[in-house]
Formats: sequence, structure tokens, C-alpha cells
Amino acid sequence: MNISVLGGDGYCGWATALHLSARGHKVSIIDNFSRRLWDYQLGVQTLTPIRPLTERVKTWRDLTGKNIEVITGDITDYEFLASTLATLSPESIVHFAEQRSAPYSMIDRQHAVFTQVNNVVGTLNLLFAIRELCPDCHLVKLGTMGEYGTPNIDIEEGYITIEHNGRKDVLPYPKQPGSFYHLSKVHDSHNILFACRIWGLRATDLNQGVVYGTLTDEIELDETLINRFDYDEVFGTVLNRFCIQAAVGHPITVYGKGGQTRGYLDIRDTVRCIEIACLNPAARGECRVFNQFTESFSVLQIAEMVQTAAQKLGRKAEIQHLPPPRVELEEHYYNAKHSKLIDLGLKPHYLSESLLDSLMNIAIRYRDRVDTANFLPQVNWRNPRNERRRQESVPAASEPEMALAADGQGRR
Amino acid sequence: MNISVLGGDGYCGWATALHLSARGHKVSIIDNFSRRLWDYQLGVQTLTPIRPLTERVKTWRDLTGKNIEVITGDITDYEFLASTLATLSPESIVHFAEQRSAPYSMIDRQHAVFTQVNNVVGTLNLLFAIRELCPDCHLVKLGTMGEYGTPNIDIEEGYITIEHNGRKDVLPYPKQPGSFYHLSKVHDSHNILFACRIWGLRATDLNQGVVYGTLTDEIELDETLINRFDYDEVFGTVLNRFCIQAAVGHPITVYGKGGQTRGYLDIRDTVRCIEIACLNPAARGECRVFNQFTESFSVLQIAEMVQTAAQKLGRKAEIQHLPPPRVELEEHYYNAKHSKLIDLGLKPHYLSESLLDSLMNIAIRYRDRVDTANFLPQVNWRNPRNERRRQESVPAASEPEMALAADGQGRR
Repeated sequence: MNISVLGGDGYCGWATALHLSARGHKVSIIDNFSRRLWDYQLGVQTLTPIRPLTERVKTWRDLTGKNIEVITGDITDYEFLASTLATLSPESIVHFAEQRSAPYSMIDRQHAVFTQVNNVVGTLNLLFAIRELCPDCHLVKLGTMGEYGTPNIDIEEGYITIEHNGRKDVLPYPKQPGSFYHLSKVHDSHNILFACRIWGLRATDLNQGVVYGTLTDEIELDETLINRFDYDEVFGTVLNRFCIQAAVGHPITVYGKGGQTRGYLDIRDTVRCIEIACLNPAARGECRVFNQFTESFSVLQIAEMVQTAAQKLGRKAEIQHLPPPRVELEEHYYNAKHSKLIDLGLKPHYLSESLLDSLMNIAIRYRDRVDTANFLPQVNWRNPRNERRRQESVPAASEPEMALAADGQGRR
Repeated sequence: MNISVLGGDGYCGWATALHLSARGHKVSIIDNFSRRLWDYQLGVQTLTPIRPLTERVKTWRDLTGKNIEVITGDITDYEFLASTLATLSPESIVHFAEQRSAPYSMIDRQHAVFTQVNNVVGTLNLLFAIRELCPDCHLVKLGTMGEYGTPNIDIEEGYITIEHNGRKDVLPYPKQPGSFYHLSKVHDSHNILFACRIWGLRATDLNQGVVYGTLTDEIELDETLINRFDYDEVFGTVLNRFCIQAAVGHPITVYGKGGQTRGYLDIRDTVRCIEIACLNPAARGECRVFNQFTESFSVLQIAEMVQTAAQKLGRKAEIQHLPPPRVELEEHYYNAKHSKLIDLGLKPHYLSESLLDSLMNIAIRYRDRVDTANFLPQVNWRNPRNERRRQESVPAASEPEMALAADGQGRR
């Protein structure tokens, strides 16, 4: 299948592009490298030393003989997007090309406006481009489980049957997103559903949970293919950050009580879910929604699992409760459905001790790149503007502890 | 009360500004005159010869001694908006300052993107400005009944209690908007609800129905105060257009079967609803939703009422069913609640023959300004780009008929 991956240089995008290429698909990547730019702007970097995309793609070709075409540009530029799609004629477009951090969107007004305009306009452009240039193409769009918020009823996959005053209808599931970023995804979802309805487009909106892990079968082939592994407060996701904190001897920082429960999945399942969606396209006019996660955990459960795994590696990992920087329920009901991808063949990689182990060992390997100042939240939802101050880095852990870890990858 | 009316030079905005001023409030208008610009761009004009805002405001002052301050600028420019609100310190902000036409948003990609960016960024700026500069200020935001679409269950006012799998919650009512414009209002609603939740702002989201009429008590005082009366396919609303069509002897153009049912209200009720919302502000942290309309009609019912009224004025008014330019259900269930404004004291002006009569006579009075080419829809929802071609105007009606109408205002 001819598949274009928008945002294919990012965390999920890169892993997906490689996986689809490995599975024999014709893959192209469209990216404007804004994710790398934001790292510079925020003064942070991924734990892992990621290589330029040209080098990544060349290594992949050298190793596998498979070519991934790279097109550089910004999908908010319609002329660029349209001419690119006209040339590529993809059968599926996987759309990761959005600003995807909640804290980033909450820094201040400019970041909120940028996030919503960037994401909404990119997706609108894509809908118009598909309508005009490749109306049969299947849009596989990354949404987020965060679109639903934490309602006191079960979360369904995109739509809910409502009985009300003796009548019944199937309606879009009500959305209660928790940041200007999550709101941008809700805006996208409404726009996509409408475009499918009026133009007969086909779309799958993947409401993805929190992704963890960095390795996939393809990425493990060579260090040049290494994927992002973000741990900073803005772009780091919670399980990844906890593993790195535990690995370097920093307290595991839980926001508030830690009862915040969310859906999670291994990045190896992300890439598989995307292929499943591509291979089973939505019908013309259909806007299908899959909840893309495999397990639910509270933040405190995640912290405790990481703590246990760390202790087995001989590392003391204290759990530290920080004043919650976000405005969210710290204890709530959470039961989100996620059977549609399983029905289509997903075999989940459930969170395991060996995975936590592997993540901590990656952290130990790249310990020199850890900047513990980036662990702590500086973006508070309650403030209309947050100034992220550059804090001096403090040593990550005592030297003997690190020496032990580096020797034999910290296993006992 | 100190009230700023954003978009106070527009159709509802101007009538509202005058009404609030007449009722003794301190009123300021913020407007960038984009509504007037769009008329030039589309090659259309309001039936009524509206005067420049400075002249309108001067006449109002001369007549009543009441001053309305005018500030010219664009609320998508945050520096302008923030400095203006810092100076005005309003207690209520009435926000009409959005692109409000569904067909305009459906012309092509650029108009869709413009509508969503303009509306979403303007409202985001306003939320940040209120948070930073006047956090106690009450935002009275114009939404639309079109946010809900036409679900097969009763439409509630903003929120719905859902019982699902043995549990219950009150959630935002699911939205199924029918154009990129209506989608922009849904995006706004989600953004406003979130801002109220995290920042404790107070907001009233008024989901307004289709407004008809042009006169209010204040506007009737002097012709210089005359309000817009749009009949073109892009900015004209259905009842107003039908009255003008009937008045000039043009067939009443119903899109499709005409079973499309919507909520309607008289502009005299619009202005009253706004004052009621201002005088009864939402609590801190509350995002309250009122459905602002007084009666529901199908398009065909409206057409038939206008036809009957026209016949009483001696005018033949044929009903013509056009191929539907929009993608919408032509027959559907529709039962939308609208009791909250009534509970707060709204006394509706129900649609009457005398109102239809008055509208047709205004049309007859300004018959020389009617361009019948602007009646017909040129924007089709199914097309990703619509070229609005300038059509030659055809004479509106036969001369004898018009002479009759002009004489004695067409009454018999």
C-alpha cells in the first residue's frame, strides 16, 4: 500500500514509517522538523541522540534495501501539501503532523493560539487536499484519548447511543478535553466528521492513549535508527519520564495524588494499530473512531510499577507528590472501551517488568544527556502565561550508583 | 452596567448596542468593519442603506444624549484587544465579532480556514484578555443553534444528562454542526467551557436561532440608525430573504423539500436576550448555555407564511423548490428546549403577519437596491471550491406592480 506519513520524523511517526516500510508498504514521510525546532526553543533534548532524517532514511535503505521518500514542508501551506499529494497519490495518509503536547499549548496565549491554528489548519488543508486530489484516499488521523476527559460514565469509541425522553440516537461522544492542545484535537475530530459527511471522505480517527517505550523491531536494527525518548515536562510522557527519573536516581514526580487514570500503550502497538487501520480502511463517507490503547493505569500505579522495577535493579526510587500543575480530577471513574482494534487483529504488548527494565537501561546508557532540571513542571494550567526559566542542572545521581548501573546495564 | 459590544457595527451587534444604550448602560463598540468589507468582496449590499458607524453613533447621541464609544480594531490582534479592554474595564463583553455566515465558510478552503482561524483566535484572545485584565467580567458569547445539528432526540440547553451502563453524568450536549462556520462556533464553545473551568471565568454561550426582522424601538427613531437587512445567499437569513423575494415579485426560493426545521427569533428579542444575559451574569467558573430562539419552523412553513402575507398585500408569491445547495436532512425530528431565557424574563415577539407586512414594506421602499441575482445559491456544500460568478441583475418585478406597492406601501 502507498502510505504517506505526515510528521514521520517524530516519536510515533518515525517508528510508524519504519514499521510500515518493513511490512512492505511504499512509505513517504512529510515533515517540517518543527518538533526538533521546539526542542531548541524549549532548551530541552530527547534522551536519545536522534540523527537527521536523511541519515535515518539512508541507514534504513542500506540495512533493508527499502526506500522511504522524504518531502520537507509544512502542511499548513496548502500549495505545498496539494502539490505533494498530487505527486505521491497515497492510498492512506497517516497524520501525526500536529503540535502534540498539552503543556506546550498551556505555556501562554501564543502557544495556545499556535497549537490550535497549526493543528486545525493543517487538518483542514488535508481534508480539502484529499477532496480535491485523492478523494478515495483513507485518512488515518491521530487523535487522543484526552478528547474525552474523565466523564462519570463509560467512554465509548467515538459515538454513544443516547436514549432521552423516549427517543434514541447515536451521537458523537461528548468531549471534555483538558488543555488547549486536547481541544485542538476535538476541533479536528468535528471537522473530519463533517468532511466525511459532506464529501464522502474516508477517515479513521485514532484516539490514542499515552504512548510509552522507544524501541520497535525496526528501530532496534541499528543505533542510527534510534527513536526519540522525551522526558522533559513539556514533551515527555509520564511512563517514559518516570523510568528515566528512576534510572538516574531522581524522585519519581507524581502530579497531585496520582489518581489520574488514563489509557496507555506500547509504541510497538502504536505502529501495529496504524497498519491495521490502513489495511482495513473506513468506507466512503465513514468517520470511524478507534480508541487506541491497551491498558488503563493511574499515574500512581505507573509510579509504583516503575519504583518496583527500579528496586529490582538496585535503585532506590522515591515517589514524590508535586502540587498538580494541571487542572484535572485527581480521583475519578475511568472505563474506556478499546475493542475495535483488537477485533481487527491487534495483539497487545502489555506493560511488563522487562519493558520497564529496558527503558531504564536505555536511560542509564544515555545518562550524560539527562538534564534533571527538565523533569519539573513549570507550566501551570492556572496561569495565563508561564515563564519557563532555565534552571541549573543538578547532578542526576551519585557517581557510585551510576557506575554500578553502567556496568552490566544495572542488572543484578 | 459597563458593556462592550464586539462586532457592534453588524446586524445583531448594532441593534444590541442601541438597545443597551437606551436602557441606560454605558456602551462601547469594538469593530473592524470586516462585515462591510465582505459585502464589497462578494459584490452584494444590504437592502437598507446603512450609514457609517460614526454617523450612526452621532445621530444616536443627538437624538438621545447618550454616548456610545467606538473603538476600531481587530480582536485577533491581541495587543489591540488587551489595551482596549484595559482602558474600558467592561463588566460584560458581548461577543458578536465573528464571521457568521455558513455559505461564506463553504465557498472554498480559504474561506473555511479564514472563518475558523478568525473566530477561534478572536475568542481565544478574548478568553486570555479577560483572564489577564478583567477576570470578573462576564463574557456573553454568540453561538448558534446550528451547533447541535438535527439529532433524533430533544435538544437541551448546552448540557445533557446521560445514563449509560448504569451510571450517570451531565455532559456537554453532542454537537453535529453543518458547516465550517457552525464548526467554528462548536470549537469556540469547547474553548470557552475549558477556560471557565481552569480559570474561573464567567460565560454565557447564547445558541441563537435564525434572526429575522430589522427594526427595533431604537432603530425606528431615525433613518440614520437603520440596520442591515441582508437578503443575499451568503449573508441573508431565510425569513428576511423570503420577505424581500415576495415583495419584489421573485419566487420564494426554498432549498430542497423545505422540511429543514430551525429555531427562529425576532431581532427585538435578540437585543432583549442579550440584556437579560448581561443583567444575570454567570457565576465564576460557570459556562452557561441558553438556547436563544422563541419558535421553531420548517423552511417551507416560513415560505408559506410569507406567501400568505404577500397575497394579502396583493402580491403573487410562488414557492420554488431549488436543488438543495447544503448537505442537511430535509425531513427530521426537531424539538429544542428554550426555557432559560423565558425563565429570566424574556417576553417573546412571536412571528406575526404584521411583522411580515412591515418587512415586505421595507423591501418595497428600498426596491431599487434589490439585486435579484443575489437571491440564488451559488455556494454548494458538495464542492471544495465554489466560484461565485457575477450574474446580471434582472428586473425585480413588473413596473405596474412596483408602482402599486410604492403607493400606499402596497397595502390594500
